[in-house]
Amino acid sequence: MAAWGERLAGVRGVLLDISGVLYDGGEGGGAPIVGSVEALARLKRSQLKVRFCTNESQKSRGDLVGMLRRLGFDISEDEVTAPAPATCLILKERGLRPHLLIHDGVRSEFDQIDTSNPNCVVIADAGEGFSYQNMNKAFQVLMELENPVLFSLGKGRYYKETSGLMLDVGPYTKALEYACGIEAEVVGKPSPEFFKSALREMRVEAHQAIMIGDDIVGDVSGAQRCGMRALQVRTGKFRPSDEHHPEVKADGYVDNLAEAVDLLLQHADK
Amino acid sequence: MAAWGERLAGVRGVLLDISGVLYDGGEGGGAPIVGSVEALARLKRSQLKVRFCTNESQKSRGDLVGMLRRLGFDISEDEVTAPAPATCLILKERGLRPHLLIHDGVRSEFDQIDTSNPNCVVIADAGEGFSYQNMNKAFQVLMELENPVLFSLGKGRYYKETSGLMLDVGPYTKALEYACGIEAEVVGKPSPEFFKSALREMRVEAHQAIMIGDDIVGDVSGAQRCGMRALQVRTGKFRPSDEHHPEVKADGYVDNLAEAVDLLLQHADK
Repeated sequence: MAAWGERLAGVRGVLLDISGVLYDGGEGGGAPIVGSVEALARLKRSQLKVRFCTNESQKSRGDLVGMLRRLGFDISEDEVTAPAPATCLILKERGLRPHLLIHDGVRSEFDQIDTSNPNCVVIADAGEGFSYQNMNKAFQVLMELENPVLFSLGKGRYYKETSGLMLDVGPYTKALEYACGIEAEVVGKPSPEFFKSALREMRVEAHQAIMIGDDIVGDVSGAQRCGMRALQVRTGKFRPSDEHHPEVKADGYVDNLAEAVDLLLQHADK
Repeated sequence: MAAWGERLAGVRGVLLDISGVLYDGGEGGGAPIVGSVEALARLKRSQLKVRFCTNESQKSRGDLVGMLRRLGFDISEDEVTAPAPATCLILKERGLRPHLLIHDGVRSEFDQIDTSNPNCVVIADAGEGFSYQNMNKAFQVLMELENPVLFSLGKGRYYKETSGLMLDVGPYTKALEYACGIEAEVVGKPSPEFFKSALREMRVEAHQAIMIGDDIVGDVSGAQRCGMRALQVRTGKFRPSDEHHPEVKADGYVDNLAEAVDLLLQHADK
């Protein structure tokens, strides 16, 4: 532990995943992970820059931040890099009109987007919205396009709610990719563009930044590929086998955000 | 056309796909494809052996055959090779107890199977049964197993109903494979074991058999890999781009079953 703590030297900015690091979602909004409210407060009182980098695509940023504040977290909307606003920028730049396969909770993020006569599909974590009928409709829209374009808001396999593991958007994206013989454009972790936009907004270079997340692929591998360091927390969707992943090795593994913050405050400014 | 018709010489047995070749499913049971009822009757009056090789997994064989007979087709249950009965044999051989993610219409095929305390998952074309809740339940069962085993009844991308293209089981199998980091065992086309069991039941060698189907991968490529010849019909889910598939070339393309039967009766016994 102490050995790899030294690998934190020179960190100036911290990117935090939200689900599985700050809290576990679930009935009634979910529950904070023990020690995370206080750990975030300590981190924000330090010299380190902090930004949140999430693949949350069921809720608008406003709703997400409101819920986290009610749980006691010190967080504001302009500190959050999330895939729905990033997708809207891309749609506008490229003049695309999406068919939306999304959760009602995130629909307000797309209020300014023209969805008439769609020429692409946007898929996000629709939760119960992933009915056969809704999936089939998105499939049919794609099959009618000469050049089918599919945007996937993240590509996570699953996340942890208080009631257990839940399928994330990734499996449903794979389903549409296979059905249509196409490859989705991922907006969100582990896309390098997404991490880079978070770094730009935090104004920290990749080699001075560290990602803290519970997803060995989406968080840890994605951040490392961008030149960042990355810690995996043993909360949220973490599974013991992650520490023996055949391709990905985190710069360190910590029991939870509180331990990560302890180590960062001890080593980062060395 | 005439040129490749000669490639039919020496055919003694014909394997017929059902959906998209005999009929298109849909509201009220679907509709026969023009000329198919009469073409099947002619084929059965010939010297050629005939067997049906389907990935239908929404209906029991009894219900499927009953529906086809009502549409006018000369078909009986013991002429049909279908994935549900084949799966039951495998489950019994290996002492496996499945969690079933299947359509109610095929549930009776599994009446004799112990589904208590499941140690594998069977996924079939569940149609509207592919709710988020049902998919998540199958996912959770797999994630709790030390060695997760997933059987997929076919791996078709989509099929055609009278109302349009519909997602088949394959995309949902891909979703669970990705979510769990596993690979499914396919029971059905294009699995070689499945084609071989149909050939055994027809008592014809692969080199003397021809498959007629609407799926360039599941039917045509699958049968060719087993040493059979294969025709693709331009009905059902056929799309013009299939004739320029980068990896698969059918031994011939015909407008429909009626044209296939014309050519077979003209060339097969040469």
